[in-house]
Order: sequence, then structure tokens, then C-alpha cells
Amino acid sequence: MSTSSYPRARAHGLIAALGANQLPAGPRNAITDVAGVKVGHVTRQGAGVNTGVTAIVPQAGNLFAQKLTAAVDVVNGFGKSAGLVQIAELGTLETPILLSNTFAVGTCVNALVRHAVAQNPQIGRTTSTVNAVVGECNDGALSDIQAMAVTEEDARRALDIAGEAVGEGSVGAGTGMSCFGFKGGIGTASRALQIAGETRHLGALVLANFGRAGDLVLPDGRRPVPDTGADPAVAVPEGEKGSIIVVLACDIALDCHQLARVCRRAGAGIARLGAFWGNGSGDIVLGFTTQNRIPHAATSDLCAHMRLHDDRIDDLFRAAAEATQEAILNALCAARPVDGFTGVARPAFSDWLARSR
Amino acid sequence: MSTSSYPRARAHGLIAALGANQLPAGPRNAITDVAGVKVGHVTRQGAGVNTGVTAIVPQAGNLFAQKLTAAVDVVNGFGKSAGLVQIAELGTLETPILLSNTFAVGTCVNALVRHAVAQNPQIGRTTSTVNAVVGECNDGALSDIQAMAVTEEDARRALDIAGEAVGEGSVGAGTGMSCFGFKGGIGTASRALQIAGETRHLGALVLANFGRAGDLVLPDGRRPVPDTGADPAVAVPEGEKGSIIVVLACDIALDCHQLARVCRRAGAGIARLGAFWGNGSGDIVLGFTTQNRIPHAATSDLCAHMRLHDDRIDDLFRAAAEATQEAILNALCAARPVDGFTGVARPAFSDWLARSR
Amino acid sequence: MSTSSYPRARAHGLIAALGANQLPAGPRNAITDVAGVKVGHVTRQGAGVNTGVTAIVPQAGNLFAQKLTAAVDVVNGFGKSAGLVQIAELGTLETPILLSNTFAVGTCVNALVRHAVAQNPQIGRTTSTVNAVVGECNDGALSDIQAMAVTEEDARRALDIAGEAVGEGSVGAGTGMSCFGFKGGIGTASRALQIAGETRHLGALVLANFGRAGDLVLPDGRRPVPDTGADPAVAVPEGEKGSIIVVLACDIALDCHQLARVCRRAGAGIARLGAFWGNGSGDIVLGFTTQNRIPHAATSDLCAHMRLHDDRIDDLFRAAAEATQEAILNALCAARPVDGFTGVARPAFSDWLARSR
Amino acid sequence: MSTSSYPRARAHGLIAALGANQLPAGPRNAITDVAGVKVGHVTRQGAGVNTGVTAIVPQAGNLFAQKLTAAVDVVNGFGKSAGLVQIAELGTLETPILLSNTFAVGTCVNALVRHAVAQNPQIGRTTSTVNAVVGECNDGALSDIQAMAVTEEDARRALDIAGEAVGEGSVGAGTGMSCFGFKGGIGTASRALQIAGETRHLGALVLANFGRAGDLVLPDGRRPVPDTGADPAVAVPEGEKGSIIVVLACDIALDCHQLARVCRRAGAGIARLGAFWGNGSGDIVLGFTTQNRIPHAATSDLCAHMRLHDDRIDDLFRAAAEATQEAILNALCAARPVDGFTGVARPAFSDWLARSR
Repeated sequence: MSTSSYPRARAHGLIAALGANQLPAGPRNAITDVAGVKVGHVTRQGAGVNTGVTAIVPQAGNLFAQKLTAAVDVVNGFGKSAGLVQIAELGTLETPILLSNTFAVGTCVNALVRHAVAQNPQIGRTTSTVNAVVGECNDGALSDIQAMAVTEEDARRALDIAGEAVGEGSVGAGTGMSCFGFKGGIGTASRALQIAGETRHLGALVLANFGRAGDLVLPDGRRPVPDTGADPAVAVPEGEKGSIIVVLACDIALDCHQLARVCRRAGAGIARLGAFWGNGSGDIVLGFTTQNRIPHAATSDLCAHMRLHDDRIDDLFRAAAEATQEAILNALCAARPVDGFTGVARPAFSDWLARSR
Repeated sequence: MSTSSYPRARAHGLIAALGANQLPAGPRNAITDVAGVKVGHVTRQGAGVNTGVTAIVPQAGNLFAQKLTAAVDVVNGFGKSAGLVQIAELGTLETPILLSNTFAVGTCVNALVRHAVAQNPQIGRTTSTVNAVVGECNDGALSDIQAMAVTEEDARRALDIAGEAVGEGSVGAGTGMSCFGFKGGIGTASRALQIAGETRHLGALVLANFGRAGDLVLPDGRRPVPDTGADPAVAVPEGEKGSIIVVLACDIALDCHQLARVCRRAGAGIARLGAFWGNGSGDIVLGFTTQNRIPHAATSDLCAHMRLHDDRIDDLFRAAAEATQEAILNALCAARPVDGFTGVARPAFSDWLARSR
Repeated sequence: MSTSSYPRARAHGLIAALGANQLPAGPRNAITDVAGVKVGHVTRQGAGVNTGVTAIVPQAGNLFAQKLTAAVDVVNGFGKSAGLVQIAELGTLETPILLSNTFAVGTCVNALVRHAVAQNPQIGRTTSTVNAVVGECNDGALSDIQAMAVTEEDARRALDIAGEAVGEGSVGAGTGMSCFGFKGGIGTASRALQIAGETRHLGALVLANFGRAGDLVLPDGRRPVPDTGADPAVAVPEGEKGSIIVVLACDIALDCHQLARVCRRAGAGIARLGAFWGNGSGDIVLGFTTQNRIPHAATSDLCAHMRLHDDRIDDLFRAAAEATQEAILNALCAARPVDGFTGVARPAFSDWLARSR
Repeated sequence: MSTSSYPRARAHGLIAALGANQLPAGPRNAITDVAGVKVGHVTRQGAGVNTGVTAIVPQAGNLFAQKLTAAVDVVNGFGKSAGLVQIAELGTLETPILLSNTFAVGTCVNALVRHAVAQNPQIGRTTSTVNAVVGECNDGALSDIQAMAVTEEDARRALDIAGEAVGEGSVGAGTGMSCFGFKGGIGTASRALQIAGETRHLGALVLANFGRAGDLVLPDGRRPVPDTGADPAVAVPEGEKGSIIVVLACDIALDCHQLARVCRRAGAGIARLGAFWGNGSGDIVLGFTTQNRIPHAATSDLCAHMRLHDDRIDDLFRAAAEATQEAILNALCAARPVDGFTGVARPAFSDWLARSR
């Protein structure tokens, strides 16, 4: 992200020059390299709570009126995200995407419904209802999730303040997340591709809360194990629990079936870091393209969509896997420790990197 | 249902003696013929609102601690139901099922989360979170859905008052629903099967809010068209919008993959009535069996489950299709008109039957 | 079909005037109402064999070089059809479709491979291989399927002789098929739709070999039971075995995801006749559109495809369900008895109709 | 494999000591560590042909009469494998598995059908037909695939000679395969797990023909690029074409839904080596367990199956990912160059290892 004051994964040498076939990152190396995409964080901390909301606003304006082509991939479905079924059926996205903790999904759905109704008063009256999309991970290890602290106002504010600079690490929905026994959270990355003579981008944003301590593999083959010292309060998770939500954005003309295939490759990026998509992990990928917008109400029976030839789709598959992998590493690099609920803590990956240099 | 004061579909001759291969109904001809299943309705009417909550309590006790084997089938995914993804992944149900209107899903999820946490204080702290399961249809044609009138208290009460007698028609979540241009709502039916020398049951409960006026086909071939008279306020829907949620229960030993195949056959029951699972319809099937309970925490690596041989599964497929079809007809037969929001109304199917005799 | 000398389902009053929402049939009421689609049958009878091959040629010319947008739906996957996995992944069809008996799939695949290689000598050398698509049903009740009588030459001939007139009943792959205890086989039907001011068609061709005796429900509510008389050789099947392959063709601009959703509605057409997609039945739907052809080798990164707005897709859903239902009824109406292997026989549905008049 | 005269991946230090959470290999470090599993290869070389057949015999005896619980996962469906649809529907395997080249699938299907009919003469007569399972990759870069050289006799012989020693590299179906620009082929590996106090195994066998040159990442972070020298005949593939078939076997009690989830993790093993499951790659996983056999004909409605608690399934997920990754590395380590059709060749990975030491 553009405003970071910490070294990201590339600066640590974790990504650069790792193969002739790899693709360059976009200018921000963030999901906001896709024109029009904005991200906002609201962080809630205090009284045992370390949580928040992250909003991904795919495009300005009325998404319900002008839907985006979208897709999902369920890598492992131990999760409570909202809105996946309708995206899978229709291939469209009609609200911004909110990320938060598991027990905030109901509240975030309500916030998105009210947000859409405010823009489109005919919803649920003279036209259909609206499909709110919310991704979640369980931050209960570091936050009092039973407090159900996130409010509709938090969600609305995250939507309102979204911008092009993307905070990473222990921020927004990432505030209380863990990853491979380290502190996890929000990360982002992007890849630039040449399509039909133009530079296009595919960006990833992750809410990283997955991975068993000891399983992490860096691109250079190192296997960092979190140092929990003698302090029993610095607990190591026993299974591959947690979850990861991956949001992929691009400005490349795909149909929703192609986009679903692109989403599937985020799972490869997760696996390359040593994860195996554990039983208790809700590993969910949401993708959209800013091309091929679909009007809510048909003005004509047919409309012309551009469509990438599948001979070129390998570049997007590669970009999805790489950007996801790098976004997770960026989340790890950025995440500062938080004072965990009931004294649990997670060490910072950046400290491990500093020590292992 | 056992306490009805109206004739159900069988009493109208719509089901009886329709083929040598058909299966008998259970004693209540209701989902509660499956031992331990209970149903509760809370109805909310007034100030333009015609809505409510219906709770299906699969078994007494702590479902999170002793999960049920479960499955889903998405006939058409234009819907906002909660909890489907995790059921599809794990094949387990760990909360009761709530049905309501589309914009009540967030609130019902919150109610189920609090209900499960009250029973299991370790949720989200020392163990995983909980997957709340909520089905929904859009009752916006007859109810002010934007009012978001359903409260967590409504949801909790529906759980609390659940019993074996099942109200049908314009009650609970069915209060404001429409079906083939007639008033729709809640219906139920069941089938009795002989398995391993014992009588077992498969029951269906539907929240019926689907079907275009003019498409309904009765088992005897008649095609009822709602009489909207000269009153333009009695609107006929223009597409196959709405939705249907089907809940299937049985007390037969199946694994979750078999149960998913059984759930799929509910779609056949819907189709036999003339529907084609329209684009704008969220046609969702949730199924569970009361056999093969799965403890939240493993007490041993392996446990013994009984499993029906697939040579016998056709009886369950037949039962699922037939019970779904009859449950919808029961919803139609029971549903009384409500005073619709903004003056819209739906005629009663029972009036059509009376006229066409 | 244009050259029939027997009454089809409409002439028996089984379809006409069944509802205001229904769509008119195309001029042939056959899959070949979709411009460019051709069908060819090769029938093999004698020495206990009652089988054959049916070829559906979607368009003239080189399908491998100019692929069609295609989709599949697996209603129930107890079947051995070839080529489904790749269609589901890529959304393209690159060979004609062959239908035959279960044990002829390997031979038909080989025939299609050689056919494609003859047209495209670079296959498997300088470019990828080819995905042969073959549907099958088990005609073992009426034919010596172990004889593996179908040859590559039979398959090639079916491709070569394909034309616009579609033989129905006990012909080609339908020669030895059974349906609801009656003689089954090949049937076809179509629907005409108005899209963007033009008349377009959706056509269905079925290989009908499904349904338990006694389950058939006619559109007018009658439930025909095959009369097996005192002759024990006229066996009634004990379960819903057999299978049905449905091929849907249209000339309407859809993407492959939309087409998959259209294919799913063929299952509704099957269910309306009383079937519940039995455990032992391989109920498979293959669909293609003649619009939006996709070149094997990309000449540019992007190409423009037309795409139907989903607000109009209900017409296609309805057409798919209705045309499938009518195609099955046409198969039943057309099918003459064959001398079954080991003396088994199936009565003609047309005889039942004549008797029940 | 037990009889190898070459160093396998572990001997090259590519696997050992890579993390505290990893599982030990079984005694053979091969799929045949699962008791009763056997593997046979028939290699066909000469006249431009470099191909063959590999048979995986899951258990001795009559598989049709006593089926195995089985599952599939389609990582990327650009492939022509046979039998996947029925496994996905029924969760059973009723023939051995044959692997070969793409254009040998029809012939291998015919061989398996005749093999099953010979054991079960009632197939297709008094009982259902049989679902032949064949996996394939395209060896057309190194072999004259258009020759369709594999015969039914080759397939039968591979079944007949199957044993516990597993040849790796350029043997059987692996004879003409390529992997990341190196010579590929057959590889195998296994993991030992403690379940209910007993040692159990999960084994993988791969037919590795995937991966773009330059994308391979070793567990230690090295990225081997094949040295094609100045010889233009040593072609580097331009995309991630090819394919990989993974066969997973275990002797652990799972239901077919659990087994499908285990199969999915083979994709993680592929991804860890740098692949992204390319568009032109048919990446298919077939899995079976030797526990919970299912009789073809039900002797009782219900039978007792053991079932692993999902709290323990992470070990199997880990084992599936790791064994797949190591099996691919073993294929690379073992594969000797072959004289390719039209002069194309692939360098040996073992030569790269020798040079890079």
C-alpha cells in the first residue's frame, strides 16, 4: 500500500526476482491498482475487543443499479460469510463487500441492506431485494467476539471513508486476526498484465487468519516458527483453524464462469505458503471485474460483453495465485501485536524476520 | 397438521390414490412425524407489516454439542439464506433453523448466535464459532419489508414455543408469502417408509412464495388461475419471483452425501406443480436426519454410523418429491388472505377450489 | 418431426392449450428448429441386439476450430457419459454429440477422436487434444449389451447422414430403450421465443430410458400403467433405473454459466412426468448455443459476445422444461415395440393411448 | 518405491526435516503402503510412440461385487478422464483405475468393461452396467498420440501384473509425460498416521505431465529451469498445458464426502511446487479408501460404517497435500529422457540436481 511506513514483503526480499514467468506488481501493489476500487477500515479496540470492519467498495455509484460481474470460490466452507449463494447463481455483485468478525455478519448484512435501500428505495417494494455480501473470520483468540461489538454505524463508516490507500496488518477487520501463529490481518498486492495492448490489473486483498504455527513456508524455503518464549499466554493454535477471506478485483473482461476459475487460483496462493486449507478454516474467495457491468433492469434483451479468450487466462490464474500469496505475506509483515483478550498474544512476523536476518 | 380446522390437500382429493408406487403419509402428515422435530411460529402483522418467523427445532437439547447430519441443495440460488456454505462443507447442522423474510436474516442470525452462546459459553472463546442457519423469502409484495420489523425477540420466541402441531398457511414466516398468484405460506407433509423392518418418516416443511400465476398444475391436471377480478390492486406477479425454502427431516440413517441427494429431489416436487425454478426465485432445500448425531468434540477418532444402502434410497427420493409437492399444496389450501401492504392482495386457493368444484 | 407418420404428443392432446404462459413450438417442433442443427440415426438390430447410435451435429463445419458455447447439468450422475468434465470447466463443445448404449461409449469416443483428427491433423501434435462427447443409456433389458455391437463405422455413419428430419421412437440410440415400463427411445420438441425482436428457438432431443412403471403422469393428470398382461416375459422394472440424456440446443446468445442454468431446467421437465431422478438413473443434460462461437486459437485477446439479460432468461427456463417434457412424450408416442433380448418386451404407449381413448 | 536404483526426492534432501508438523512416510513411501493396493505398468515404445498404461488395483477380488468408498476432485477440468461423474454421484469405485494417454481412454474403458463382465456375467443383463475409471494425460509432445497405440491387451496386462513395487518415472502411462519442462511421469509417496491407536496410511500416485518450464519451486526455495541448451528441438512448452492425475488411497474409515475433501488437498500439493492449475491442464484427483466396502446388492437395508471424526481429518488433509507434492518430486527424480516423437526431448531433472549440487 502506498502510505506504509513499514517494509512490505518485497522489501524483505520475500518476493522479488522469483522466476522468469512472474508478473510485475501494479503501482501501489494493492487491490486499489484496479481503477475505482476503494478500501476503508474501522478499527474497534478496548474492553477486551480487538476487531473492526473493512469495506471494499468495488466502484463508486449505485452498484445495485449497475451490478458487477462476480464469482466466488469456496476453498473450504467452514465459514459464515453472507451472500455467496446468490453470487454463485447469478454471477453478479450488487453491494460493496464488508469483512469483519464471525459474529458481526448479521449486523453487517443489516447495514448493507439499509445502505442499498437508501440508494434504491424500490428495493423489496417494486423490485427484488438485495444480496448483501459479508466475509468473516473468527478473531475470538484475540478479541471478545461474544461482545458482538461491531455496529451498523461502524460498517457504514467503513464504507464512507474508503479510499485508495490500503492500511495493512492489525487494522479494520484484521485487528484481531492470527496467521501461522503470528499476528495476522489485512494485506494486499496486485499484478499488472498486458491485455489487448493495454495494461490491466488484478488485485488481491486478504483477511488472513489461517495457518497452523510451524506450517508457514516462505518463498525462499525458510519455515518461520513463532517464538512463544516461556510465556504460556502466547498460545499456539492447535489446528489449522481461523480462516481467510480473499477478495480479488480486476479490470479485465471476463464472464462470471471465467472469473470463478480465476478465484479458484487464490487457493494455490494460500497453499504455497504451507497451508492445506484446514478443516476448521473458512477459506473463501470473492472476485469481481469492473468490466461488463450489468444493469439491474434490462433496457434491451441482449447486450455486448467483451470476453477474454481462454488462451490468455493463464496470466490471470498466475496473477491470482501470486497476488494472494504476496498479500498474505504483506499482512504478516505489517501486523503489529495487539493486547489480546484474556492475555493471549501473537508475536509479530516482522520481529521474526528481524531476528533471522 | 393435526389441529387444522380447514381441509388439507388430501381432503380436496388433490393427493389420494395417485399411483400404486406412492408412499403413505405419516400420522400427522407433517414434518413433526419425525420424532423430536418441533415447529414454532411468531406472526407479526400491523402497520403494513405481514411477516413473521418460523422455527424448526430438529431435536431437543444442545444441537451445537451434538450436531445433526445435514445437507443442502440449491435449486436456484437467487436467495440470501444464511449458513448454507458450512452445511455443504461439513454436512452438519448445529443450530435450529429459522425462516423469515429476506431482510430479517441478519437479525435471525444474531438471535441464533446468542441462543447458541447461551447454551455453550465456550463458543468463540475456547472452541469454534457457530453456524446459524436461516432461510428466507421476500414477502415485500404483501408486507413492508423495508420496516425490518422482525426482532431477535420474535426469533427467540419462535424457538421457545415450538411444538408438534404445525400451523399452516398465513402464519409465522408464511404470513406475507404468495404462491402461483394465490396466497402462499407455510405447509407441511410427510411420508412413512419401511426401513429394516421399522416404520420411519421423512417430513417436509415449506415456506412457499414462488410460482407465476397461471403456471400451477394440480396433480389431476387442472391449472388454477387466480381470479384477480377487475381490481387492479390484486396484482399478478410478472415473473417467477419469490422463492421457496424446503426443510426436509427424517429419522433414517444416511451420510451427508446421501442426504444431499435426497434434498435434490425436493426440486422435483416443486417442478411437478408447474414451476421451473425461475431466475428470480431462491429455491433452497435444507435437510437433516435425526440419526448419526456427531459430537462437537471427538471422544474417539472413529465412531460407528449406520448407513442406508443406496438400493433403498429411491424410497427416500420419492418421499422427498411427494412430501414437498403435498406440503406446497397444503400451504395453498390453508392460506387465508391478508391485508397487503399498499393494497395489494392475493386470493385464497381454497376459494378457487370451492368455485371449481 | 417433419416426416412422422404417427401422431405426436400434441396430436393426442397431451400438450396443447395447457396454460396461458406456455410458449409455441417451432415449425418442426424438433431440435432442428435451431438453424444448422442436424440429427442422424444408425440402428443395429438382430442376434439379440437392439441398439444404435444417434448423432447430434450442432453446426456444419469444423467444430474444433470454431467451438460452441456449451454446458452440462448432472441431474443424477449414475452414468458413464464422456466429455462432461471438460464442458463443465471450459464451457465449450468441440465435437458433435453421439448417443448410444452404455458399453458403446469407448467406441464412440474413439470414433469422435478420429473424426476430429481427420479434420484437424494438428490435434495432439502441435495443439491440444480433443474432448469427445458421448451420452449413453443402458438398453440391456432389450438388447444384448455385452455384445458391444456398435462399431466406429456405425458412429461415423450417424454423423455422415445427419439431417434436419428427426426420427423418433425405437431408432438409433433409442432402439432398445424403455420408459416408465413402456417402450422408450428418441424424442424431440422445441419452443419459439421472441428475443430482441427476432424469433429464436430452443430445441430438445432426448434419449428416454428412465422411469418406473406406474409413475408416469400425463399433463392431463392421467397415470398410464403398462399392461403386461399375463405374460411374465413383459417384465416391469423394479426400480427407477435406466437413464435419460437430454440435449438442448438454442440460437440465443448466452454465456456458458447461463446455459448451465438453462440445462438445469430440463430436470423440471423430467420431474413433471412423475420421475424423481432415481438412484440408478443417469440423468444428464447437455446444452449448446449456436451463438458466440469461440475460435480454438485466439486471434485477439478479447472478443465481443452478445449476452441475454437475465431478466429474459425465464423464457428459456420455461422452454427447456416444456420442450424436455414434450420430447419425452413424443418418444413414448413414437416408440414401437422391439423383439427384446431373452424375450423381454415393452408395450407401446401409443397402444395404451388408443385403449384409453 | 522399494526397488528403485535411483535416489528419490528424500535422498536429494528435497523433503526431509521440513517442519515439525509433518508426517512420516510409510515403509515403501508408496501408494502400496496401503494394504492391498497394487500397481502395474505396461510401457509401449517404438515407431514414434512413447506411451503405456498404468493400472492401480485398489484391492484384490471382485470390486464390482464389493465396491470401495471413493471420491473425485476436479482441480481443473481440461481433461477426458472417464468415470468421474458416477463416482461423484454415488461415492463408489467398482473397477480398478487405469491411467494412459488421452486417446487411449476409449480403449481402456472397453478393457475395464470386459474385465468386469468376465468377473460378473450379470452386468448389463440382470443388474446394472459398470463404471470404468480411466485417467489420462496428453503425451503428444513426446509420443505419436494419433497412433492410438494402446490396446485392450496392454490394459489387461497392466491389471494382471500389478504388484506392490511401484516403478517410477518414464514407465507405463508416464513414459511420454513432461513436467515443468523436465521429463515427467509416474511418482508415488505415502504418509503414516496414527488413528485410533493404529498406524494407517495415505498414499498418492501421480501421473505428472503438468507445469510450465520455469515455474517449478522446490521445497527449499530453489527454482529449477530446464536447460534446453542451443538445441531448438528441446522445446519448452509455452503454457501450463499437460495435466496431472493424482490417485489417493488410504485405509482410514471415511465417508465419501470426507474423502472428497481429502482429495481436494492434493491440489495444495500441486500448487506448492509452483503450479497454478493452468487452463490447459486436466488436474484430476481420484481417491478411495479400503475401509467401508459397499456390497453391490444390499443384504440388509442398513449397514454399520466407521467414520473418522472431522477433528482428526486435518492429518489426512496434510498427508494428501504432502504425499502429492512428494510423489511429483519422485516422478521428476526418477524420469529418464526418452527419444521423443519428431525429435522433441525433455531434460532429466536428476541431471539438473546433479549440476546444481
